Amino acid sequence: MKVTLSALDTYESSFTPLVVIELAQDVKEETKEWLKNRIIAKKKDGDNNDDFLTMAECQFIIKHELENLRAKDEKMIPGYPQAKLYPGKSLLRRLLTSGIVIQVFPLHDNEALKKLEDTWYTRLALKYQPIDNIRGYFGETIALYFGFLEYFTFALIPMAVIGLPYYLFVWEDYDKYVIFASFNLIWSTVILEVWKRGCANMTYRWGTLVMKRQFEEPRPGFHGVLGVNSITGREEPLYPSYKRQLRIYLVSLPFVCLCLYFSLYVMMIYFDMEIWALGLHENSGSEWTSVLLYVPSIIYAIVIEIMNRLYRYAAEFLTSWENHRLESAYQNHLILKVLVFNFLNCFASLFYIAFVLKDMKLLRQSLATLLITSQILNQIVESLLPYWLQRKHGVRVKRKVQALKADIDTTLYEQVILEKEMGTYMGTFDDYLELFLQFGYVSLFSCVYPLAAAFAVLNNFTEVNSDALKMCRVFKRPFSEPSASIGVWQLAFETMSVISVVTNCALIGMSPQVNAVFPESKTDLILIVVAVEHALLALKFILAFAIPDKPRHIQVKLARLEFESLEALKQQQMKLAAENLKEESRVSGKEKET
Amino acid sequence: MKVTLSALDTYESSFTPLVVIELAQDVKEETKEWLKNRIIAKKKDGDNNDDFLTMAECQFIIKHELENLRAKDEKMIPGYPQAKLYPGKSLLRRLLTSGIVIQVFPLHDNEALKKLEDTWYTRLALKYQPIDNIRGYFGETIALYFGFLEYFTFALIPMAVIGLPYYLFVWEDYDKYVIFASFNLIWSTVILEVWKRGCANMTYRWGTLVMKRQFEEPRPGFHGVLGVNSITGREEPLYPSYKRQLRIYLVSLPFVCLCLYFSLYVMMIYFDMEIWALGLHENSGSEWTSVLLYVPSIIYAIVIEIMNRLYRYAAEFLTSWENHRLESAYQNHLILKVLVFNFLNCFASLFYIAFVLKDMKLLRQSLATLLITSQILNQIVESLLPYWLQRKHGVRVKRKVQALKADIDTTLYEQVILEKEMGTYMGTFDDYLELFLQFGYVSLFSCVYPLAAAFAVLNNFTEVNSDALKMCRVFKRPFSEPSASIGVWQLAFETMSVISVVTNCALIGMSPQVNAVFPESKTDLILIVVAVEHALLALKFILAFAIPDKPRHIQVKLARLEFESLEALKQQQMKLAAENLKEESRVSGKEKET
Repeated sequence: MKVTLSALDTYESSFTPLVVIELAQDVKEETKEWLKNRIIAKKKDGDNNDDFLTMAECQFIIKHELENLRAKDEKMIPGYPQAKLYPGKSLLRRLLTSGIVIQVFPLHDNEALKKLEDTWYTRLALKYQPIDNIRGYFGETIALYFGFLEYFTFALIPMAVIGLPYYLFVWEDYDKYVIFASFNLIWSTVILEVWKRGCANMTYRWGTLVMKRQFEEPRPGFHGVLGVNSITGREEPLYPSYKRQLRIYLVSLPFVCLCLYFSLYVMMIYFDMEIWALGLHENSGSEWTSVLLYVPSIIYAIVIEIMNRLYRYAAEFLTSWENHRLESAYQNHLILKVLVFNFLNCFASLFYIAFVLKDMKLLRQSLATLLITSQILNQIVESLLPYWLQRKHGVRVKRKVQALKADIDTTLYEQVILEKEMGTYMGTFDDYLELFLQFGYVSLFSCVYPLAAAFAVLNNFTEVNSDALKMCRVFKRPFSEPSASIGVWQLAFETMSVISVVTNCALIGMSPQVNAVFPESKTDLILIVVAVEHALLALKFILAFAIPDKPRHIQVKLARLEFESLEALKQQQMKLAAENLKEESRVSGKEKET
Repeated sequence: MKVTLSALDTYESSFTPLVVIELAQDVKEETKEWLKNRIIAKKKDGDNNDDFLTMAECQFIIKHELENLRAKDEKMIPGYPQAKLYPGKSLLRRLLTSGIVIQVFPLHDNEALKKLEDTWYTRLALKYQPIDNIRGYFGETIALYFGFLEYFTFALIPMAVIGLPYYLFVWEDYDKYVIFASFNLIWSTVILEVWKRGCANMTYRWGTLVMKRQFEEPRPGFHGVLGVNSITGREEPLYPSYKRQLRIYLVSLPFVCLCLYFSLYVMMIYFDMEIWALGLHENSGSEWTSVLLYVPSIIYAIVIEIMNRLYRYAAEFLTSWENHRLESAYQNHLILKVLVFNFLNCFASLFYIAFVLKDMKLLRQSLATLLITSQILNQIVESLLPYWLQRKHGVRVKRKVQALKADIDTTLYEQVILEKEMGTYMGTFDDYLELFLQFGYVSLFSCVYPLAAAFAVLNNFTEVNSDALKMCRVFKRPFSEPSASIGVWQLAFETMSVISVVTNCALIGMSPQVNAVFPESKTDLILIVVAVEHALLALKFILAFAIPDKPRHIQVKLARLEFESLEALKQQQMKLAAENLKEESRVSGKEKET
């Protein structure tokens, strides 16, 4: 039988299980005993803050404590001589890698979850999400994702509204396109800047805006020689930063570049295959060859999927080998690596169609196909399918448990069995990536396909609900994770909006309507387009510079916090100095007496 | 007779005069008495830190205290009913504007000055400047200027060395120019980023890196309704920030744009006049018309000078009308306004020659003339001429004082009379502006005139000495001013280096050698140039992003300071909470007793 062991298992009267540690089936008794003692020893050191913290915060603390159970003088895990330990090694990590612990996950709070669902997505009505409640249940990182999704959707509405008439009235005048593109570019800059302010507002309210990442304890995967952190004075593993830099610039960077090159190479092969298939079809023109026309696309799609997966593994391995001290630094480096590759895979073919083949019809068609199919597929694969599977499984478990009729508390037992088998939510990465690629489809070629924004808005309204369903019913409850902002994603979205200035200017410059205005000199046309592009880029940077990242009232509050803490330090040091002085005079007075 | 009144005039045995307040000749006795009392009253509140602070720091404190003497219940300055006061108005400012106080300036410390000069510039030898000593005598702002001047000169040496062979061997191959330009662009990015780190290093050592500008008291020119500062809790004038924003965006910005437009308009008139004079000369070709050829340039130079002065006044008026709370904000806004105008005046004609006339010979010639004449003129007008006048004046004063043979301490009297008549150093603005324009000459058209860097290096080596002479012997000692960095100048230099990417790429694209490589298609050429330019710009931004602004050891120290001060605040608050708890239990205990 599996043993479930709660970290808060202290036989209190109103016992609420928070976190489940699933052990392997054949774990030895001595190992269990040792692990329990280590966890309880740690617990005794801690405070008892039951009433003060939300359930999600308690679970976060338990996770943090478990991850920071580090080996002291143990040479191995008791009962498992092959699972070696050294001072400072994270116990949980070694237990997981040796297969002794299978997983650690927090339990859902069914009552709170039901309440949250009611205000969130079960009743279909146009209203804002209960972001603060989401934060209370799932933590800041996930609440920020839903906040961003909502904000982004509302921000896209003006673009969708302005884009619609272009489709309805088949406007093809270049001046209208120029207006649309200019609006888009300025709008996308403004919304990203305004988001920063809104985000600062939210995280200030939650108390996570001034998270001092430098003061954090290292992530469990971090290894190094045990030493003293020079900032906090705590004992922890240290790893020289220049070594990390060397690993990043001499290994990771070249590897990523190589992968990007390889991906481009594969794309070129795909286009060659397309041409070959088209040629074959035109020459023979049979039924059989018309089927052949689809083959290159299918092969390419499969190859891209395989490359994406392989690259993802490589990126995770490399980033964890870079040995970042903080979870946030690890995440940022991983995101950057994966992002660049995904960007190229998604958009390289569109760039090729736009700027090498210069086929705007094909571009519009590919864009529409990619956008719509990816949106539909995502929603089905991500939420609806798992939800259906989940429900089927739930019915099976219920029957089993009812057949058991054990003496133990069946509802808890049932809940653990049910949630244990649920999928694990791998973090907000894929959700953000989806939004990021969507932003790419909307902004990069917006003047070719103004309808994209409307599709994105439609998709996101349902995405909010399917993502909410996914979080509440499909996946295990994730550990809550505090965060101050959407981190590297802000940078990614901003970079995308800079690139989209370049692409849109180029597309407008290439359009036949604009070319008709400059019938004689193509050079003049290009020079004007380049000049406009530079002016727009300059405007973007000036706008980003002129809009403060934090609203004024928050700036003031942060400054006050800083002022007060520096004043407190000053007083503390003055008091210390005064005490020293007193001590000295006391000693010297005694000396005089003798 | 003039009355000199030292703010530290407290009849101590070892009296060192620090600051001179020059009053008008006919000031009434009651005003003098009142002013003396106000100053002494303020002084009694302060600490006595004589031994702890440097002389420059004492003078800075006196200036700060004088500037923050603010009216309480006085309705006017005693004896001058027309000099109105209202609560919170800076007394010194009103005294200066009513002509009662003529000036306030700190005195030189002749002994320390002599020592400083000996290590600084009197002995001609290739060595680093004694930056720490300069900081001790003149304060951080001026020391940072000299530090930047030195750093910038050394940083230009590689560019000068690489540029020389282009001149010596008359290299005209475009590939060599491309290499030179690319090196320049990357180099200029790197040196600006590295300066930030060096600057952080210096100011950390001086203790000014973490100047909390928000905690500062407002600048004397700042006016508003008396209220409580929400950060520090001190009573001071308040002015709503949205009003300032409105003034900036609705008045200052349009005004600056108008001035820029006007300046461009004047330049176009100049070029028209040039063409007209050239035509006249070619048609008649007499001696008289060949003199006429110089007339447009002379008129243009004079007009530019006048415009510069007028604009400077307008900018100062507007910026002080914008009512910035902090001196640094005032300076930054003023610098930005003047900078943009100066940039246009200096470089617009060069841009016109380069990109409209496309005359590279003329460009090289104008560039050389502008660079060399401005450098020579600057050094003469700025330092040597005033120094010569100053010495002549000094001899005259000495004779007068010797003829006087009064009973008072003649050396002090002589010093005050001498220094009173010295020019006032108007801040580092003009010195930085000179360097900024020099950087423009060197980098904007570097591939047309690679020799510019060599001239700049030569100039700067003498500039260090003439600026030092100017600071020590020509001007009144300036008040020391703490600063954390070179402020908005960093941004200005960075912007210049971004613009220079664009100009250099354009120049290379226009060169006949490059055009010869693409004989058929000019379009391809332009597209390639634009692509290279975008790549270089992207590289610049990535470089700026990848090089941290502060060296690691300083990041760690700052983080530790923050950690310790937050910990101190935590402890303070916990102690407070504990005391409250004790108090409450005491009260409730008493209540039970009764």
